[in-house]
Amino acid sequence: MPALPARPLATEPFTDDLSAMRRALDLAHFAVGLCDPNPRVGCVIVDANGRLLGRGHTQAAGQAHAEVMALRDAAEHGEQVQGATAYVTLEPCSHHGRTPPCCEALIAAGIARVVAACVDPNPVVSGQGLARLRAAGIKAELLDSGGLGDQARELNIGFFSRMLRGRPYVRMKAAASLDGRTALPDGSSQWITAEAARRDGHAWRKRSGAVLTGIGTLLDDDPRLDVRLVDTAMQPLRVVIDSRLQTPPGAKLLQPPGQVLIYAAQADETKAAALRQKGAEIALLPNPDGKVDLAAVLDDLGRRGINELHVEAGHKLNGSFIREGLVDELLLYLAPKLLGLGREIATFGPLASLDQAVQLDWLDHVPMGADLRLRARPQGRLGSWLPSDKA
Amino acid sequence: MPALPARPLATEPFTDDLSAMRRALDLAHFAVGLCDPNPRVGCVIVDANGRLLGRGHTQAAGQAHAEVMALRDAAEHGEQVQGATAYVTLEPCSHHGRTPPCCEALIAAGIARVVAACVDPNPVVSGQGLARLRAAGIKAELLDSGGLGDQARELNIGFFSRMLRGRPYVRMKAAASLDGRTALPDGSSQWITAEAARRDGHAWRKRSGAVLTGIGTLLDDDPRLDVRLVDTAMQPLRVVIDSRLQTPPGAKLLQPPGQVLIYAAQADETKAAALRQKGAEIALLPNPDGKVDLAAVLDDLGRRGINELHVEAGHKLNGSFIREGLVDELLLYLAPKLLGLGREIATFGPLASLDQAVQLDWLDHVPMGADLRLRARPQGRLGSWLPSDKA
Repeated sequence: MPALPARPLATEPFTDDLSAMRRALDLAHFAVGLCDPNPRVGCVIVDANGRLLGRGHTQAAGQAHAEVMALRDAAEHGEQVQGATAYVTLEPCSHHGRTPPCCEALIAAGIARVVAACVDPNPVVSGQGLARLRAAGIKAELLDSGGLGDQARELNIGFFSRMLRGRPYVRMKAAASLDGRTALPDGSSQWITAEAARRDGHAWRKRSGAVLTGIGTLLDDDPRLDVRLVDTAMQPLRVVIDSRLQTPPGAKLLQPPGQVLIYAAQADETKAAALRQKGAEIALLPNPDGKVDLAAVLDDLGRRGINELHVEAGHKLNGSFIREGLVDELLLYLAPKLLGLGREIATFGPLASLDQAVQLDWLDHVPMGADLRLRARPQGRLGSWLPSDKA
Repeated sequence: MPALPARPLATEPFTDDLSAMRRALDLAHFAVGLCDPNPRVGCVIVDANGRLLGRGHTQAAGQAHAEVMALRDAAEHGEQVQGATAYVTLEPCSHHGRTPPCCEALIAAGIARVVAACVDPNPVVSGQGLARLRAAGIKAELLDSGGLGDQARELNIGFFSRMLRGRPYVRMKAAASLDGRTALPDGSSQWITAEAARRDGHAWRKRSGAVLTGIGTLLDDDPRLDVRLVDTAMQPLRVVIDSRLQTPPGAKLLQPPGQVLIYAAQADETKAAALRQKGAEIALLPNPDGKVDLAAVLDDLGRRGINELHVEAGHKLNGSFIREGLVDELLLYLAPKLLGLGREIATFGPLASLDQAVQLDWLDHVPMGADLRLRARPQGRLGSWLPSDKA
């Protein structure tokens, strides 16, 4: 589990709600790679003079949430929290899940005011956490400035996606040359980008509840799909789209610790048994064309508690995801080189005209070692379901 | 002709050589699109207290150079330049070209000190300008700090290329989707990028002595290839690579003011006569394969005084330029969209292995309206001929 920096913290008192919430948001990032399928939440408890009394973030599923961790932290350091304010990046939960509701813990501790950065999208909470606090006489409010609600939602975009759409947020990762090639015609692709980009790619895998590839990439590259280049407390589920169950029982992906799930379209009991013996789960989700039904895969992964899905596949499967409108974000590493003929990022089309292009909005572009990282989102992917501070 | 901002200038005196040379370099940029085939040079004349006495930049070919313009500017404003220092971004010329040598003008004016940002690569000058000044008792030196020499050379990279390699600096421009497509399979490409990127592309055309395309793009897009979206004092030469002389006499490229040069591999007197009547010059430069010899084209353009060549062609001709190792810079506009199947930036290869990739060094990446502009240079393209401050 990622350790917080030891106390004492930088002890400048918080001067306003925004600065306290920023600290809570910083804390929430420590829950990445730890708390799935729960949301990444941070909490600070602050006295009337702005002094930090306690801090915490969501722990592994079934363990304490951010609010309880912050209350414990205050108690362990002998701080009195009666009358204090709790800043929490997501509305405190009001329902009994695997843990008792955080609202009750805040009420029991005598907290006087709760500021949340955004409302919990979980339909069993959604506003009821704040209502429960108010019913107990606590001043409970949403922070409505500074864009921190948007940042808290972006950090939990997969959780919001699962709660509001029933499926994971799909991030498609590709590494390409400047002329858009992800491999030579013979499939060689190791390596187009340099180490910094590959390490960053693992940091995005770590954010994800599942990493998905296709049988083409599995047979070409024999990837492990686990998180190795950055530290993590948990490994994502490894998922293969493998219509005809061609995954070899010796595939490297079956070796690392963690779960493997293979979606197939055709049942072949002998092959399935061999893969099950290696620890893989086989799920049949055929579409009418005899391929795996990708939309159904997303629904199934949503039911399994996958918040963010990291797609790291070849041009054919990427093309299918794009053609079916299932991609929420493109994470593209561009290497400063030209490869000429080779495989493209995603095979789809040909389009009938340029105005049929998949239009994207940039998220950012940053140098990543020798390479360049570009993130973009198909237009309109969020507008329909993700709330915004601007709304 | 681009007008300098009117006097009075910001009149803070220069505090050191670097600040004066920076101003001279700013002035040199006013010569872009004006002075080809001469180098872009700026000059300021400064008294012992750092006060600006005169300023100038290279004018159109056959007219005054920067030093003479600065001397004239001082005289017109009644400033006395005896004993003053002249800062000039390129070593003053010592030979009689279309104008008398600048060295003589500086000597005659009684300038006491000349600081140059870099040595003129022109073999008939190269160091002799500074030597001539010293022989006349002037303190003549090269500024050896601040990286301004590199900046002065970059501004004149085409002039340096022509002087040192006998051929233009080749900048290949492409506009592509994020998945590396410059057109749909049917050739439609107007427009992939938005207006800001297209205007920036014209600013690079303006820098260029010639804009080159291939017959494929000419037949697909019927481009004009002139500079329209930014102001310019001169239009670049328009060049077509057209092995079999298929350019239609009605092509738009033959309409705007300025010269058109068509390189062919096969002589067809009827076609050639029709194109000549439209004002085009036809040059035969066949290679043994019956195509146009691109290396010979560059040599020929060098002889014609082209410093920077702007290549704005399709995937086939781009591929030929890259395959033959003739590209010095890639100027790539990436639009935030995916196009799927379509035409690639440059068709070459397939490479036998990833280590045969054309390796690039980034120059910069900047947002350009909704699009992203990336500039990169094939590794080792400059090391062999362009001097550097670091050398």
